[in-house]
Amino acid sequence: MANDDFQAVFHPRSIAVIGASSDPMKFGGRTYLSMRARLDRERLYPVNPNITEIDGAKTYPRIQDIQEDIDFAIITVPAPFVVQAVSDCAEKKVRALEILTAGFTETETKEGAEWENQMADIAQRNNMRIVGPNCFGVYSPLSPLTILPGPDYPKETGTLGIFAQSGGFTSNLSRRILDLGIRINKAVSYGNACDLNEMDFLSYFKEEENTRVIAAYIEGVRNGRRFLDLAKEVTLKKPVIIWKGGLTNQGSRAVASHTASMGGSSIIWQAFFHQTGAVPAIGVDEMVDLIVGFHCIPDFKAKRFSVVGGGGAITVAAADALEKEGLSILPFSEDTQKAIRAYLPPHGNSAKNPVDMGTPRFLAPTLKPILEAISESDRVDAIIIEQMAFDSSGSIDEKLAKAISSVHIDGGKSIIMTLPQNSTGSEGISAEQSRRKYREYYLSHGIPVFDSLERAVNVLGKILRYNELKARGNTI
Amino acid sequence: MANDDFQAVFHPRSIAVIGASSDPMKFGGRTYLSMRARLDRERLYPVNPNITEIDGAKTYPRIQDIQEDIDFAIITVPAPFVVQAVSDCAEKKVRALEILTAGFTETETKEGAEWENQMADIAQRNNMRIVGPNCFGVYSPLSPLTILPGPDYPKETGTLGIFAQSGGFTSNLSRRILDLGIRINKAVSYGNACDLNEMDFLSYFKEEENTRVIAAYIEGVRNGRRFLDLAKEVTLKKPVIIWKGGLTNQGSRAVASHTASMGGSSIIWQAFFHQTGAVPAIGVDEMVDLIVGFHCIPDFKAKRFSVVGGGGAITVAAADALEKEGLSILPFSEDTQKAIRAYLPPHGNSAKNPVDMGTPRFLAPTLKPILEAISESDRVDAIIIEQMAFDSSGSIDEKLAKAISSVHIDGGKSIIMTLPQNSTGSEGISAEQSRRKYREYYLSHGIPVFDSLERAVNVLGKILRYNELKARGNTI
Repeated sequence: MANDDFQAVFHPRSIAVIGASSDPMKFGGRTYLSMRARLDRERLYPVNPNITEIDGAKTYPRIQDIQEDIDFAIITVPAPFVVQAVSDCAEKKVRALEILTAGFTETETKEGAEWENQMADIAQRNNMRIVGPNCFGVYSPLSPLTILPGPDYPKETGTLGIFAQSGGFTSNLSRRILDLGIRINKAVSYGNACDLNEMDFLSYFKEEENTRVIAAYIEGVRNGRRFLDLAKEVTLKKPVIIWKGGLTNQGSRAVASHTASMGGSSIIWQAFFHQTGAVPAIGVDEMVDLIVGFHCIPDFKAKRFSVVGGGGAITVAAADALEKEGLSILPFSEDTQKAIRAYLPPHGNSAKNPVDMGTPRFLAPTLKPILEAISESDRVDAIIIEQMAFDSSGSIDEKLAKAISSVHIDGGKSIIMTLPQNSTGSEGISAEQSRRKYREYYLSHGIPVFDSLERAVNVLGKILRYNELKARGNTI
Repeated sequence: MANDDFQAVFHPRSIAVIGASSDPMKFGGRTYLSMRARLDRERLYPVNPNITEIDGAKTYPRIQDIQEDIDFAIITVPAPFVVQAVSDCAEKKVRALEILTAGFTETETKEGAEWENQMADIAQRNNMRIVGPNCFGVYSPLSPLTILPGPDYPKETGTLGIFAQSGGFTSNLSRRILDLGIRINKAVSYGNACDLNEMDFLSYFKEEENTRVIAAYIEGVRNGRRFLDLAKEVTLKKPVIIWKGGLTNQGSRAVASHTASMGGSSIIWQAFFHQTGAVPAIGVDEMVDLIVGFHCIPDFKAKRFSVVGGGGAITVAAADALEKEGLSILPFSEDTQKAIRAYLPPHGNSAKNPVDMGTPRFLAPTLKPILEAISESDRVDAIIIEQMAFDSSGSIDEKLAKAISSVHIDGGKSIIMTLPQNSTGSEGISAEQSRRKYREYYLSHGIPVFDSLERAVNVLGKILRYNELKARGNTI
């Protein structure tokens, strides 16, 4: 696909919404109104033959009635009218489309399949690109384009590229990542993929210089061999995290009903991940964890850890979890232990590594010198800190967060935080609010944060394996 | 161990705190003040030779100076004074003790080991039971006893028995379970286990009639063969969930520093779980999930599922996850599909099973008849519903929760909810509050709730395997 096609998809200067309405409960209304709130220097044209204006903006009966050139059209009309709308776009020489409407091959009806073939045909003959149908569209922060239901997505851009066959997943993953303060370069939900597909988006993000991490949810791949070769090339440049849906018989059946894709077998995909170095994920939680990890510590290579926790079980769990990933916790030298012990009460803790602080409530004046002592140890490359307790006023946590960040910056060792959600009742919401505030603080200082030790160690293992593979030039 | 020993440990009528103080920052202060706030008809005596009263209560220089009989003593004095305190208790004919103080075998010093041997000796010679040392003690809701730092733990009792070598874990797990509205029968943190150990507590919970689920965190077992035989017997009566810490070399080292236990090998423990039918867990999150599952659906035997979600990716993920556990999602009959389709828009969803509602925002008037149609299907034994969106006002969610609960009660099929935490920013806390409120609502109606599909399916698989083993009388 040519570069200027992507220009039209991700940075259109003139946009038509076919099926625009003033009703935010309709796709056409929500999309039009969302984009109208996001316009900068772009022009937006509502198309709808049944009304004459939407909140003061003149509507056009057909896209051909618009005088100016249109880069990008968004089609939201019901399925039986989509082929005509696509044909109108071709006549208008629109460069690219997104078709939000569903009701095509995924319905497993003859009619649906025919309509989808027709729109793909028209696009190909007219050199017009289609995203969809049966999707939530494109979020491109520097343009007005925003996936459903994202009217409030930020206009700041980032370094994460997302492409996914599921609209719900794209919007859900984007929301969760944005909530953590991480910004997105582009997110595309591409549904049935009648034209643009996984190959196109992976190629695009490969070359897009600001994209440093790629995350994908894929139900089916058109050409397995080509996709594998492309993935091999991309992973040499940047990490590609893939959640492959539909790897079981039941999952494949669900995939057919969802985006009319072919699921593929579990064994083939295991080989794919093995050969390409793409990073496998299952579910939204693991996807978020991996994005956080690759975003904060893309070049992570540490294998010798220190763990600092507030209780013996935590340190035992960390030691077990790290060893299972082939990562080590070496006992500190006598000097390091002595330096740490100076800040701990005489008993009920451990200065050996893991460090058991003996209390879940860490205080900056104790934790900071302990972290400094650990940072000076030549037996440690990275430090995992489990902060379990949050103070609802927040002032203690603020001092703690500043102390941890300063050691992260000055100490020369990566810090990884785990902030488990220990206060889980509806009454204890203030502790959760404080936890989230400090999670955002740590992330904004480049410190990755995970909800549990098990989840942190899973991500560290996957980042390390990716970086090893990349260093060896991807050869297994 | 005799039954009246347990009476003294879990329901003492007279309690002495040796090392009581008025300072809540000290163990002796926090423990004394917590219990004082929890007294019902029991008597509580502070012992401390250095002060004469605590908030109006007369202190005793030594436990022997108390006139009345003492069932239970709590020792919080520094390590070098503990043996003397234990000896004083023996002279006073105290029935049982908990020793919160640390600084014994876990320090790996000669002195620490000697002190611990001495206290164990005194206890044995005087037929006095010890919980600890190096622990957070006992929480027994119908008594004043509450583990640290649990002054506000409820006085209502429940059906969960917890025993754990780690005090922090006991208090953390208890807090999380209580936050969900589930009540605890007893929770014991038993630290170095110089006297009472895993055998005693497992035997106790085996016979305790109100205990229906047992959860344990174990670092080391004294007599593996006896523990295995006992576990086999217990799992025939009730589920035993065990997190075994220290199964790696590093983990074993951490275990030695924590409670001076022997870690044991991973292969031996795999065989243990296989032979006993005890349910393995790793980490606090999985422990909480399993407790929730066994609490709500102890006799779960369903293998044919329906999944209802708001998006195609969710239904694909569910189908994949269930199949990996050997569980099935059968396509609905044409009649069931037709009944469901009547409540769905024409496209962008699926009525086949999994059901894709086409929107993450479920409404009671649509969801309820769909669930009723599914309940009538003879191809389904249980329904998993993923509710992704929460309305901050809560009124929509309330109608939804009532509709789901009514189908759960009247429909004759188990309902399992997954409520992912999709709004994760510090700004979106009201959605999280609503999510928690409805999680508690569902749990109080006997509907288990999990944070993700993957976690729900993990628990369902483990409950099913436990129930199969139990039905076969534990023979593998």
